Amino acid sequence: MPAEGLKDMLGRQGLTPVDQALTILLHELSSLPLNHELLPLPEALDRVLSAEILSPEDLPKHPRSTMDGFAVRAADTFGAGQSMPCYLEIDGEVAMGQAPGGEVRQGKCFRIATGGLLPQGSDAVVMFEHTIPVDDKMIEFVKSVGVGSNLIDRGEDIEKGRPALAKGHLLRPQDLGLLAGLGIGEVEVYRKPRVGILSTGDEIVPWSQSPLPGKIRDINGITLSALAVRCGAQVTDYGIVSDTEEHFFEGVKQAAAENDLVLFSGGSSVGMRDLGERVIEKLGNPGILIHGVALKPGKPILIGLSNGCAIFGLPGHPVSAMVCFELFVAPALRLLSGIPAPEKPLKPTIRARLDRNINSAAGRLDLVRVQLKQQQDNSFLATPVLGKSGSISTLSRAHGYFLIDEQSQGLNKDTHVEVHLLQ
Amino acid sequence: MPAEGLKDMLGRQGLTPVDQALTILLHELSSLPLNHELLPLPEALDRVLSAEILSPEDLPKHPRSTMDGFAVRAADTFGAGQSMPCYLEIDGEVAMGQAPGGEVRQGKCFRIATGGLLPQGSDAVVMFEHTIPVDDKMIEFVKSVGVGSNLIDRGEDIEKGRPALAKGHLLRPQDLGLLAGLGIGEVEVYRKPRVGILSTGDEIVPWSQSPLPGKIRDINGITLSALAVRCGAQVTDYGIVSDTEEHFFEGVKQAAAENDLVLFSGGSSVGMRDLGERVIEKLGNPGILIHGVALKPGKPILIGLSNGCAIFGLPGHPVSAMVCFELFVAPALRLLSGIPAPEKPLKPTIRARLDRNINSAAGRLDLVRVQLKQQQDNSFLATPVLGKSGSISTLSRAHGYFLIDEQSQGLNKDTHVEVHLLQ
Repeated sequence: MPAEGLKDMLGRQGLTPVDQALTILLHELSSLPLNHELLPLPEALDRVLSAEILSPEDLPKHPRSTMDGFAVRAADTFGAGQSMPCYLEIDGEVAMGQAPGGEVRQGKCFRIATGGLLPQGSDAVVMFEHTIPVDDKMIEFVKSVGVGSNLIDRGEDIEKGRPALAKGHLLRPQDLGLLAGLGIGEVEVYRKPRVGILSTGDEIVPWSQSPLPGKIRDINGITLSALAVRCGAQVTDYGIVSDTEEHFFEGVKQAAAENDLVLFSGGSSVGMRDLGERVIEKLGNPGILIHGVALKPGKPILIGLSNGCAIFGLPGHPVSAMVCFELFVAPALRLLSGIPAPEKPLKPTIRARLDRNINSAAGRLDLVRVQLKQQQDNSFLATPVLGKSGSISTLSRAHGYFLIDEQSQGLNKDTHVEVHLLQ
Repeated sequence: MPAEGLKDMLGRQGLTPVDQALTILLHELSSLPLNHELLPLPEALDRVLSAEILSPEDLPKHPRSTMDGFAVRAADTFGAGQSMPCYLEIDGEVAMGQAPGGEVRQGKCFRIATGGLLPQGSDAVVMFEHTIPVDDKMIEFVKSVGVGSNLIDRGEDIEKGRPALAKGHLLRPQDLGLLAGLGIGEVEVYRKPRVGILSTGDEIVPWSQSPLPGKIRDINGITLSALAVRCGAQVTDYGIVSDTEEHFFEGVKQAAAENDLVLFSGGSSVGMRDLGERVIEKLGNPGILIHGVALKPGKPILIGLSNGCAIFGLPGHPVSAMVCFELFVAPALRLLSGIPAPEKPLKPTIRARLDRNINSAAGRLDLVRVQLKQQQDNSFLATPVLGKSGSISTLSRAHGYFLIDEQSQGLNKDTHVEVHLLQ
């Protein structure tokens, strides 16, 4: 469904707007089945739950004090104040880590520390700071408390049977903490998406080699691998495959058979791009989903789906390849990790003031790399990092990027932009 | 240096404002020596360079075409246009991955694909799209090009001898790409900071056990470990230590001897807090740096430095412990990782509208947990997640938090807040 009027310079193919391309991609991927596995809790950080977790018990199991002080019957303190203190007898003490012995009876109280289990009969805690010791057995209260004061009640954190974490939830440190608190030692999570990465082109040599004239070192292999690892994928680097159609097809075919998502890069020439299209089509249905998007840099991206494997033909220029990863591959990996696609993802940004005018062609999304510099007033100034999309150093110098949308023909100096970090 | 007028409720100790506490902490840590190690490039993702890297060569080593087209002498195209085309003879072709044979002479051109090495004699590339084939040997140019058009020049990405990456730079995927492009196979990076974690309190049992009445499962151990791992630390979990002074001192002493930073948590009661202070003082100079901060939740934090090991006594309540980690431990770990402390860190946020009034006491920093919900107009609405600081489920339900500063007594409904994600 390329939009009307968006053609590349050869007029060969309609270019799809970025939003529309992403919608098509995620729609196709959302019907793929996902596998899951059982993991011990400490290994489940950054994994995604494949089933809802209900709380197996009340947390806490017993009411506990949240302050150092005295466990009381709240009614015994009613009316107490600075000018009209009340007095209770200290009838016991809650030892930490022990079930309290005995019961708090009317007119009496127990010493209790933060975390102590509330003794029978008591229904509130008076903070130490609101008491004055009279002698060893008697304490003066200068403030009244209501029932439930300064304690965390049984099931107040979470009640037995209630949803603790939803299916599709990414497990963060605090989520492991909640599950530990509930005594849940194993969790069912989706498997990590498997990503296969190939670099193509007869001019590419492994980066560990010294290239002869005409050759260059592979930059995209290590960059794309690291980006995919950061997205939680299990990555296999298939190295460099020749760009003869037979070798290239066999290379991508093997990677597609062994992975959930395949990235090949290197095909910025028209010949390579045609080859990439033919190979994706040949690998299986539905084949090519997107031929090129209205984006700079990153226009010549190919996106396909063959036999349940998402296949991305990324431009060879390192900047274009990384931009395409950020805008298309990362959201695809989130979905294949089991995270449901939100209407608008939570992508935090830094607001910064542009330090020069920037032109942009209408009808395409422009991604502008920037450096950020702190100003005297603590705000940030954004300086565009100019340079060709073949220049990897521009990405190393950039802190992040902002977008200029399809409707705009550019932004003026001093405009405020929302900078996404490339971190 | 506790600020005037900030006392805790017992009046025992001045509370330090958060900014001042962080400044004191980072100042003390900045004089500690850091160790480094040599790593193969593919293992260096998310590590920090301990020495500047200068480019050992020009990148690219030779000028290369950035377009499919024809390598020309730019002067031969001067004046060419739609109404006045110029004609050049096709005298050769640059094979991909090969050094071109021959030289482009006046009035002639070579076919070249994207990435091809520019042949001798040529100084520009004309895009295929601006040419019309006449026959096998002759091509018509409908646009002139300037010297250097459509190519990336020798050293244009980065020149030999220029700084490629600075000391203290965190290696992101694109930085590995730059170093790969330069053929740098090993990098000198700082060692990961070693973090030791202990939970204290006789009421705490390992989360894998079923607690008897009076006991609760350890939540902080797994949460703090995961947070430290996320910060790039090498974590050792020392489990639960008894809160008798002797056992506790021996436990913290061992952890401090084996790590760069130690976290113990569990001491929210006054007794535990006093114990923590004594232990830090006893471990070595300078001892306690901060006794409590003007922060809610998180007030009772202890920060010390003993014999070069940073020691944090975190509150026992899980929410307070995590807040203290976010505001103090994470910046300390960045510094101990070798990342220089910026005046203002690059912490991206999400702007959201508050859906209710929130009170706050003047004189302390308040951290408010929130859930974010997307609105029809694509903006976000922030709903505070209320709950006690002992309630771990409130952190699981929160997407992030915003801060109410010391001067403010609260925020009104519909105020816009900057939400930091707890992701």
